[in-house]
Amino acid sequence: MEKIILTGDRPTGRLHIGHYVGSLKRRVELQNSGEFDKIYIMIADVQALTDNFENPEKVRQNILEVALDYLSVGLDPAKSTLFIQSQVPQLTELTTYYMNLVSVSRVERNPTVKAEIQQKNFEKSIPVGFFTYPISQASDITAFKATLVPVGEDQLPMLEQCKEIVRRFNMIYGGEALVEPDIMLPENETCRRLPGTDGKAKMSKSIGNCIYLSDDAETVRKKVMDMYTDPTHIKVSDPGHVEGNAVFTYLDAFSKPEHFEKYLPEYENLDALKEHYTRGGLGDVKIKKFLNSILQEELEPIRARRKEYEKDIAGVYEILKKGSEEARRVAENTLQDVRNAMKINYFSDEELIKAQAAKYQANKD
Amino acid sequence: MEKIILTGDRPTGRLHIGHYVGSLKRRVELQNSGEFDKIYIMIADVQALTDNFENPEKVRQNILEVALDYLSVGLDPAKSTLFIQSQVPQLTELTTYYMNLVSVSRVERNPTVKAEIQQKNFEKSIPVGFFTYPISQASDITAFKATLVPVGEDQLPMLEQCKEIVRRFNMIYGGEALVEPDIMLPENETCRRLPGTDGKAKMSKSIGNCIYLSDDAETVRKKVMDMYTDPTHIKVSDPGHVEGNAVFTYLDAFSKPEHFEKYLPEYENLDALKEHYTRGGLGDVKIKKFLNSILQEELEPIRARRKEYEKDIAGVYEILKKGSEEARRVAENTLQDVRNAMKINYFSDEELIKAQAAKYQANKD
Repeated sequence: MEKIILTGDRPTGRLHIGHYVGSLKRRVELQNSGEFDKIYIMIADVQALTDNFENPEKVRQNILEVALDYLSVGLDPAKSTLFIQSQVPQLTELTTYYMNLVSVSRVERNPTVKAEIQQKNFEKSIPVGFFTYPISQASDITAFKATLVPVGEDQLPMLEQCKEIVRRFNMIYGGEALVEPDIMLPENETCRRLPGTDGKAKMSKSIGNCIYLSDDAETVRKKVMDMYTDPTHIKVSDPGHVEGNAVFTYLDAFSKPEHFEKYLPEYENLDALKEHYTRGGLGDVKIKKFLNSILQEELEPIRARRKEYEKDIAGVYEILKKGSEEARRVAENTLQDVRNAMKINYFSDEELIKAQAAKYQANKD
Repeated sequence: MEKIILTGDRPTGRLHIGHYVGSLKRRVELQNSGEFDKIYIMIADVQALTDNFENPEKVRQNILEVALDYLSVGLDPAKSTLFIQSQVPQLTELTTYYMNLVSVSRVERNPTVKAEIQQKNFEKSIPVGFFTYPISQASDITAFKATLVPVGEDQLPMLEQCKEIVRRFNMIYGGEALVEPDIMLPENETCRRLPGTDGKAKMSKSIGNCIYLSDDAETVRKKVMDMYTDPTHIKVSDPGHVEGNAVFTYLDAFSKPEHFEKYLPEYENLDALKEHYTRGGLGDVKIKKFLNSILQEELEPIRARRKEYEKDIAGVYEILKKGSEEARRVAENTLQDVRNAMKINYFSDEELIKAQAAKYQANKD
């Protein structure tokens, strides 16, 4: 069986280094590993519209931003299919048929849906489109016969829902039109969620605690120097805490042994740095400068690639257009399999027409 | 503004004389009145699948039956567009966007949905597809920019939901991409719902109390002679009741003054017949024979037309195929209007690409 990956992002803002360590970096590694037959990366505008339907302009503007971020981190249209969800209408048709296979109470029990309803203060005013998005997500995954979906642990219930739909569909309609996907969890805990620069659990555009992939060098430096560390670490000589200290969490995610050789040769590794900070006598400015050096090294090639792509915006749309055409072809094939399994391909079903004509002939004789 | 009608039926069984007096007969009159610019008649297989998803074969087989019934009552493919819902995938895309404009609690409050959930004993196990069908119905109506929807009074809440979606869409996305439809109620009370031949409120295939348009003359005669009348009317001389007497309800729906001249010249009209029955001295057999004469006269040309179409089943599918192609063209136009209003037509939006390119150019200077 082919190894096929589907993943993507909602175009509601530029991507930040949380997205980078959480998924983009690994996505590029997977792409370049050569181990996968196909990689589909979806800019999920339709899903973004389910809770931004009153502000389509925001979604529309951010499609380009996300595409530029994708290309600048090294996602390569020659290796991965980058496409826009709304340009693959086959997905909505799959959703229609899958909606028959899921009960309202099953969606209500989905923990991810429950949590998001609470988080967005939707309660009963939740739009039907948002409520049913686990089903539309199953369409995204199955349309490309994805076998692997690299997402965070919080998305496990969504994947379970998708597997249920696949099993139910194949059971009711026979055959194996649909493929059950597996989840591909992040490799290490730190990468699963990077806190904001203010130490808050989540990076959020509205709070302004994100470092964007597209931030210039000076902006990144300022954001790092303003980062939340340890409020009890007042004088350099005070003992400091590394737990809940955003600078150290970032260092956990980004620092490698060679960074110490290059920028802080007086420390053997991160453990030694943490030990000194905990003991006291290590200032925040020093660790922030170190983190800044590391981030600049990581972000510089990304920024450079972005600059190149920014020169040819029409070219970026062309990439998305080609990717969307390819995605449409693949989704249309799956849809034909689905229609054949459900036997709703009436006009191309010669057997049906013959059998019904014969029945009426027999009635007459 | 053009006068456009959309209507249709779920292909879950052959159509019966309840459908005929309730909607089909008038549909043919509207078609032949020349007052309407376009008439779309949809065989709603996708909707039928929402509560028959485990039995697609039933839906599939009945598409032809409904089409034959349509053609045999006089719906004319040269005047009305006959099409199959599943062959117009644009409808599912519209539904996806409309689902953002309706809250879950709004659907839950829909009295028609409430009643049908109860009737089908669905409760919490209701499939999402069935639950959301007021939204998909709004897609069916608006895709064809229908201005008039001829349905029963029980469908009023569905139409209200459709109007709400139209207003909300046009308000949020600007312009007038969508058209608000009006309901077209049946002209008289009797035609709204014909009881079963057993006197039960509803004709139902599973109870076997229907007279089908495709029943042959002898079957119709037998069904009429077995009809429920008045259980207190035992001897001919007994006074009888016309209220709740199915034969009289059918006479209300079908008999015309000329039928008395032709078959029962001893009575001036239906009132005179009812008066005699109520007084006593009029036997059930006589009124049943009268009803049978009337029904045979009405059904004979329908049966004859059906026989003709049954000789060319492939031709009937060809009619549906052509109609579906036409419906797809029209729905695709509406979908383009919807996409333009929502501004999700990225690749054809030269202004968007230019503006974003200019923004990046300005950043650089």
